[in-house]
Amino acid sequence: MTLGKNNPLRSVSWEKFSHLTPEEKVPLFCQENGWPYHVLIAQQFDRRLLDRVCNLATKTRKIAKTKGGMKFLQDLCSEKRAMLYFSQPSSRTFLSHYAACQIVGIKPAEVRDAHTSSEVKGESQEDSVRTFSSYFDMIIMRHPEGGFAEKIAWMLSQTDRPVPVVNAGSGKDQHPTQAVLDIYTLQRSLEKRRGGIEGSKIAYVGDLLRGRTVRSLAMLLTHYPGVKQYFVAPKELQIGKDILEFLDRHNVQYEITTNFESVIPDMDAIYMTRIQDEWDKPGEKTFDNSAYCLEPRHLGVLKESAIIMHPLPRRKEIPVEFDADPRAKYWRQVRNGMWVRAVLIMMIFDRDREIDRYYEDLMTE
Amino acid sequence: MTLGKNNPLRSVSWEKFSHLTPEEKVPLFCQENGWPYHVLIAQQFDRRLLDRVCNLATKTRKIAKTKGGMKFLQDLCSEKRAMLYFSQPSSRTFLSHYAACQIVGIKPAEVRDAHTSSEVKGESQEDSVRTFSSYFDMIIMRHPEGGFAEKIAWMLSQTDRPVPVVNAGSGKDQHPTQAVLDIYTLQRSLEKRRGGIEGSKIAYVGDLLRGRTVRSLAMLLTHYPGVKQYFVAPKELQIGKDILEFLDRHNVQYEITTNFESVIPDMDAIYMTRIQDEWDKPGEKTFDNSAYCLEPRHLGVLKESAIIMHPLPRRKEIPVEFDADPRAKYWRQVRNGMWVRAVLIMMIFDRDREIDRYYEDLMTE
Amino acid sequence: MTLGKNNPLRSVSWEKFSHLTPEEKVPLFCQENGWPYHVLIAQQFDRRLLDRVCNLATKTRKIAKTKGGMKFLQDLCSEKRAMLYFSQPSSRTFLSHYAACQIVGIKPAEVRDAHTSSEVKGESQEDSVRTFSSYFDMIIMRHPEGGFAEKIAWMLSQTDRPVPVVNAGSGKDQHPTQAVLDIYTLQRSLEKRRGGIEGSKIAYVGDLLRGRTVRSLAMLLTHYPGVKQYFVAPKELQIGKDILEFLDRHNVQYEITTNFESVIPDMDAIYMTRIQDEWDKPGEKTFDNSAYCLEPRHLGVLKESAIIMHPLPRRKEIPVEFDADPRAKYWRQVRNGMWVRAVLIMMIFDRDREIDRYYEDLMTE
Repeated sequence: MTLGKNNPLRSVSWEKFSHLTPEEKVPLFCQENGWPYHVLIAQQFDRRLLDRVCNLATKTRKIAKTKGGMKFLQDLCSEKRAMLYFSQPSSRTFLSHYAACQIVGIKPAEVRDAHTSSEVKGESQEDSVRTFSSYFDMIIMRHPEGGFAEKIAWMLSQTDRPVPVVNAGSGKDQHPTQAVLDIYTLQRSLEKRRGGIEGSKIAYVGDLLRGRTVRSLAMLLTHYPGVKQYFVAPKELQIGKDILEFLDRHNVQYEITTNFESVIPDMDAIYMTRIQDEWDKPGEKTFDNSAYCLEPRHLGVLKESAIIMHPLPRRKEIPVEFDADPRAKYWRQVRNGMWVRAVLIMMIFDRDREIDRYYEDLMTE
Repeated sequence: MTLGKNNPLRSVSWEKFSHLTPEEKVPLFCQENGWPYHVLIAQQFDRRLLDRVCNLATKTRKIAKTKGGMKFLQDLCSEKRAMLYFSQPSSRTFLSHYAACQIVGIKPAEVRDAHTSSEVKGESQEDSVRTFSSYFDMIIMRHPEGGFAEKIAWMLSQTDRPVPVVNAGSGKDQHPTQAVLDIYTLQRSLEKRRGGIEGSKIAYVGDLLRGRTVRSLAMLLTHYPGVKQYFVAPKELQIGKDILEFLDRHNVQYEITTNFESVIPDMDAIYMTRIQDEWDKPGEKTFDNSAYCLEPRHLGVLKESAIIMHPLPRRKEIPVEFDADPRAKYWRQVRNGMWVRAVLIMMIFDRDREIDRYYEDLMTE
Repeated sequence: MTLGKNNPLRSVSWEKFSHLTPEEKVPLFCQENGWPYHVLIAQQFDRRLLDRVCNLATKTRKIAKTKGGMKFLQDLCSEKRAMLYFSQPSSRTFLSHYAACQIVGIKPAEVRDAHTSSEVKGESQEDSVRTFSSYFDMIIMRHPEGGFAEKIAWMLSQTDRPVPVVNAGSGKDQHPTQAVLDIYTLQRSLEKRRGGIEGSKIAYVGDLLRGRTVRSLAMLLTHYPGVKQYFVAPKELQIGKDILEFLDRHNVQYEITTNFESVIPDMDAIYMTRIQDEWDKPGEKTFDNSAYCLEPRHLGVLKESAIIMHPLPRRKEIPVEFDADPRAKYWRQVRNGMWVRAVLIMMIFDRDREIDRYYEDLMTE
C-alpha cells in the first residue's frame, strides 16, 4: 500500500500535472490494485469503483450492528493515524470524516489554527502541511483554494514519505466524497424501489450553478445507463454548460427547465439544493427561490416510490413537515456519508477484502 | 437500549411536553429498566437512582486502579461514539465529560464553531444538531439557552434515530450531573465520618440566588431523611423562594441566615460558592462577599469530621491554605464528577451490571 | 511510578526551589529508577539518559513497522490519559505530542480556551491547571511564561494527586524535547556516517541569540567528547555569553564567526535557524540574514557525509531544492521528534523495559 517510489504521481512534474485533464489524472491517483490511493476528484469514480463502494458500505453498515462487528471494524486500520486538516469551518463534513475514522479505528487528530501558527513564522503552506503530515498516515483535507488537495498530494509524492490525501472539499469545484454518498443513497433507495438507478428520472432543483454537489453527481450518473436528468433552476442559477457538454459527450438524456411543479410527478428522485448566497457579493440581493421549494401539497403529487434528497444544510427548500415522510432520505443521506467515508479509508489502506470475508462469515453463521 | 419507537418521549407533542412539570417529565426520560435514557434534569434522581450511581462510582473507582481494570472499563462502551456539543466555553465541564468518555471507552468527538458553520448557511440549530447526531450514539450538550438539551432530546425522539442526550449545563437552571457529583462527594465523605448523609447539617454559603448547583443539591438532599439545610447568604443573593417552598412541601428542615460564622461549628458539610457576577449587568458593582468567605481561623472552629466543598472555580471564598486540610474535599469533588459521569454513560447504555459482575470477581479474588 | 508522597519535589518549598540552579533541580524531577518523572529542562538529559532515549527511539521505530508492533506499542500506556495544555498556538509541537500519545496508546485530550474559561470566572491559573489535571494522568504543557511548567510540576507535587509534567516549550528558555530530538537526529545520522557524534564538527547558523533550540543543543553536546561547536551568526544575534561560559566550564572547543561560507566545507552537521523576529518590537527592522542562508552552490562545497538540520519552520535559510538531497535531514528531524516524545512518555510511566523485551523477541525471531 505504501506506494513510496512506485507512486505514479512521483514521476510527473508539477508543470505537466497541472495541465492534465481530470480524466488524465485519474490513473495517477490509483494504487496498484486499481482502487484509489488518493481520493481527490469525482472523476476517479467509475462504475466498477462506485459499485464496490456501495457494496462495501452496505456490508459495513450491517457489520456495525453488533458490538463484535464494531470491534472488528475498529481494528481494521487501528495502527494508523489520520490528520484532519480543515482550514474552512465545516462541522458537518469534519464530524462525518471524524466518525468515519473512529469506525475503522484510524486514530484522528485535528489541525487547527494551521494558518496562524505557520504564517506568523513565515513558513510556506506546503512546508506546514508536510510537517504535519510527518506524524500521520493519511490526510483528510478541506481548503478554500481549488486544487489545493491535489497540490498537496503531488507535493508529498515527491518526498520520501508520501501519504494518501482525501479531498473533503476544495474551492468551488471538487467535493468527491459528497458525490459518492449521493450515489450510495440513490443506489440503496432505488434498488429496493425499482431495482436500481438505471433508467430512473432524477431532478436537481435550486442553485445548480454554484453547488458543486450537483455538478459532480450529474457526471457520476453517466455511469448508470438510461438515467434521465432534469435541471430545474432559474436561468441565473442554471447548471454550467461544461456539465451539459459532458452529458452530451456521454449521450446522456437531460432536460432543462424553470418549471419545478411540472416535473415533480414523473421523478424517481428529487435532489433539492439551497441558494449558495455565501458566494454573493456583499449587498447583493439574494435570489428568491420560492418557486424552487417543496411544499406540503407536493407530497400528494410525488410518486409513492420516489425519494427526496438534499445535501444539507437546508433552508426553506424542504419544510420540516417532510422529515417524517418515508420518501425523505436526506437524513439517511447524512449517515450514508459517514459509511462511504469509512469505506474509502479501508480501501486506501487495502483492508476492504477483510470486510468481504467477515461479511461472508456473518451471512453463513 | 435503543428505544426507537418505544421511546416514551416520542408519543408526546412539544406543546404538551413543554407544559409538563419537571416531575411529570421524569418518566419520559427513562429507559425500560427504569434508569435514565436521557440525563436532563436533577429531578430525575430519586434516592434509588442516587444510591445506584454512588455505588457504581465507588466500584468503578476501585476497578480503575489496575491496568486490567481500566481495560475492562474501556471496553464497556467501546463500540459507541459520543458527540460533545459545547456552545459555551467550559474547559472543566468539557474535560470532565471527555475523560469520562475515555474511561468507559466511548469514542468522543467535539463540535466546535457549531454556530458559525450552520448559521452562515442559514440552517436551523435543530437541523444542525440532528445532522451532527447522525454520526454519534449519544450527545453531551452544554448550551446557554435554558431547556435547550430537553428540546433536542424531544426533537430527536421524533426521528428514526433517537440518541440519548446528557445535559452538561443549559441556561441558568439545570446542570444535573453537577448535583449528582455533589451527592456522591457527600455520600463518600460522610459515610466514613458519620455513617451517611442522613441527619447531617449542611450549609450553603455565598451566591445562592444565581448558582444552579445549590438549587439542584438542595432538592436532591430531600431524598436523605433528617438532613437540615442552612442557606447562608446576604439578602440580595439568598436562595429562591421556589426552593424553600419545595423544601416545605417535602417537610425538610432549613434555616436562612446572614451570619456565616455562627453556623460553622455545627456543620457536617459546608458548601462554599463564588459570586456569579458574570450575570451582573455591565458596570454593576460586584457584591463584596468578604463575610461569606472561609478564613484560616475557621479551621479551628470547624468540626474535625466536617467537610468543605466548592463547585469551583473559586475566588477568595476558600484560601489556598485550606487545600492541604483533610477536610477540604473540593479537589476530590472535581474528580468525583468524572466518575459519576462515566457511570451515567454506562447506565444509559445498560452496561452497569457488567460493573457489578467485575467488581464481585475482584472482591472474591 | 506514582510517586505520591515519595515525590522528591514535595519536600522542597517554592521559595527554596525557585532559587536552585537547573543542575540542582535535576534530581527533584526523577523517579525512583533514575529516569525522568517530569521532563522540564534540558539539563535533565545526561549522556546515560540520552543514550537510553536514542536506543529506545530506534527500537520503537522498528517495532512500529508492523501492525502487530503498533498494537503492542498502543497497549503500553493504554490505560492512561494525557492532557495537552497549549496556551500558545503551535500546531507542529501540538501534533507531534498528540501523535506520540497515540503511538503509546495514552488517550489524549486537549485544553482549549483555558484562559477564557477560567479568567472569566476569576480563577487562578494554578487552580485551573489543577482542576484539569484531576482528570488526567499526565500533562503536556506549552506556555508563554518561562518556568510555568516547573511551577505547575511543583504545585501538583504538593497535592494528593501529583501527575508528571512534560514541558513542550515555556517562555524563551526551555523546550527540552526539541533538544533531545536534535541529539537523536545527530546520533542516528552520524552513527552511520562516521561512527557517532563524538569528535564531530557542528555549526549553528542564524539567530543564535533568541532561538532556544541552539542553546539547549549546545549544552547537551557537551556530553559527547571531542565535538567542536561553531557559532555562525551576525554579532547582534550571536549566542549568549552564558552558553559560552558553560562550554568553557566543560572544556568544550568552540569557534565564533560571522563567516558562514568559510566553515561549510569542514562541518559534519550544519544546524540552520531562522530569524526569530516575532520577538522584535513592532516597527523594528528585521535583520537581513542573506549571508546566513544555504544556497544551491553550497551543495557542492558541503562534505558528502555531512547533514543539514533545521528545527523548522524555515524561511529562506534553506532553499526548497535542498529537500531532495540525501544530506537534508530536517524532515526526518520532524518525525524523530514524535518518536522521542513517545519514548519519554513510556519512560515516565516505566514501560520502557517492555520495549527492550519486545525488540529482543523481534530480533531473535
